[in-house]
Amino acid sequence: MDAKGDDSEARLRADIAAQAVNPAHESRLLSRHNLISNTVGLAPGYLQVNLVVLPSAYASDFRDLCARNPVPCPLLGQTPVGDPTRILPEGVIKSPDFDIRTDFPRYRVFQGGNLVSSREDILAEWTDDSVGFLIGCSLSFEEALVKNGLRICHQEAGTVPAMYKTNIPVLPAGIFCDSATYVVSMRTYKENEIEFVRDITRPYLATHGEPVAWGWEGANRIGVRDVHAPDFGAKQEFRDGEVPVFWGCGVTPQNVVVAAGSKIEGFVMSHEPGYVLVTDLTTADLPILSSRIRL
Amino acid sequence: MDAKGDDSEARLRADIAAQAVNPAHESRLLSRHNLISNTVGLAPGYLQVNLVVLPSAYASDFRDLCARNPVPCPLLGQTPVGDPTRILPEGVIKSPDFDIRTDFPRYRVFQGGNLVSSREDILAEWTDDSVGFLIGCSLSFEEALVKNGLRICHQEAGTVPAMYKTNIPVLPAGIFCDSATYVVSMRTYKENEIEFVRDITRPYLATHGEPVAWGWEGANRIGVRDVHAPDFGAKQEFRDGEVPVFWGCGVTPQNVVVAAGSKIEGFVMSHEPGYVLVTDLTTADLPILSSRIRL
Repeated sequence: MDAKGDDSEARLRADIAAQAVNPAHESRLLSRHNLISNTVGLAPGYLQVNLVVLPSAYASDFRDLCARNPVPCPLLGQTPVGDPTRILPEGVIKSPDFDIRTDFPRYRVFQGGNLVSSREDILAEWTDDSVGFLIGCSLSFEEALVKNGLRICHQEAGTVPAMYKTNIPVLPAGIFCDSATYVVSMRTYKENEIEFVRDITRPYLATHGEPVAWGWEGANRIGVRDVHAPDFGAKQEFRDGEVPVFWGCGVTPQNVVVAAGSKIEGFVMSHEPGYVLVTDLTTADLPILSSRIRL
Repeated sequence: MDAKGDDSEARLRADIAAQAVNPAHESRLLSRHNLISNTVGLAPGYLQVNLVVLPSAYASDFRDLCARNPVPCPLLGQTPVGDPTRILPEGVIKSPDFDIRTDFPRYRVFQGGNLVSSREDILAEWTDDSVGFLIGCSLSFEEALVKNGLRICHQEAGTVPAMYKTNIPVLPAGIFCDSATYVVSMRTYKENEIEFVRDITRPYLATHGEPVAWGWEGANRIGVRDVHAPDFGAKQEFRDGEVPVFWGCGVTPQNVVVAAGSKIEGFVMSHEPGYVLVTDLTTADLPILSSRIRL
């Protein structure tokens, strides 16, 4: 957060609250003005999305990548080439003041497969040739878990989820063919809660859907050796009898970008894991979004 | 093939040729009368499909399975519950005489996770509660490879492709959560042909699309230890300098069914690997089919 006087920040927050057309819009405005950190638990009922920004030459291959890997990379929308203010298809973002370069709380910038900076906007890096992609995020289904009486370990801890690199291969598409693997997010549950957790998150096909693995044997099978050492996000505490449950995660394309290395010319931008965008899509849109994925 | 007098068979073939509205229809009628074995190279330009038939209780989970694993399981159509003569959506099969129980050349029947028989029809096993699913097949893009001057090793050998079990995990969906892995089909190419092969098969998203792995290192990575010992289909010869190229394969759901074991009550039917159905969809339909998969 930028250093701001308490008074001016309070005024800005009040202005934003007055101006916002819905909680999703409010969270985007707060992000734009760097008045929030992560988006965990924000605007319940609205779907959250991860980000990838690429030079347009790689856009077609990236859409194929998403089509072939819809569990970690459920593509929900994209900008026209070079236009940071619009998302297609219509309805994903409804506020005309949208700007993909500022409305995520925090961004990561990659070049040649290396993370070069973490920043509050990408106004300097976005070009007339950039295309931004919005990818469903598992923060979207946490409200449904909470409503059903299930805990969210990282919400209780006031952190973002623990995320891990796995051994699940990302299926290649075009230039993206360098043996990257899935990133997964993790939440802790008791063994006897797992079928319920699976049922609750199954309808969220457009935001990673049901888990990809669970339990200690599942962790081992997907190559998560130490749940206490996440690759992204925050380490989580396990209560007695709890086991890890893993979902596909929209941080996966960052792994793909890193694996592609210097094959990608120009900047690639993404979100800081856990610091994502709240869209105007809601849980009421899930059936239509699923029907685009599920015949 | 049933034992038939040469004369009566010739008459039947002539009748079928006269009756068929297109080469796809002809291949289905020939299959129905058991006058062909496999469907390799049949009806060029028409898309071929694999089969899974399940009791209706598992249909929703199976559709989720396909949505989450579209590379090995690209779902192109399904029957209404109990009706073997119709496929939805419209257009996949256009001939009113269609019968999913007879129009594949050869079927496999599973019970309790075990293969119990291989047969020419499933008239006895289909019930009022059965749902048939059609899954895109890689035989669909072989014409495009041939047109571009590339060989198809198993076509030259007069066999079906070599197919292998891999270590690529099928992502779980509902009841289908028992750590099954992808089956892949294999064709042999020279190293310097691989990018061309990838480009040619990329538009066929609805029938497995571009390869999932290639080369000896790729074979090793996906757990194919001995290319000369396929798990399904026919062993293929490698020419000098050729390496294996692997595609997602619609035999994968058979692995899923076997892994589910006795959790599935009732018969599950599938096709004999390589002995599939020719649909009335053509390569001209690929853009629309892809748009259902790719945002």
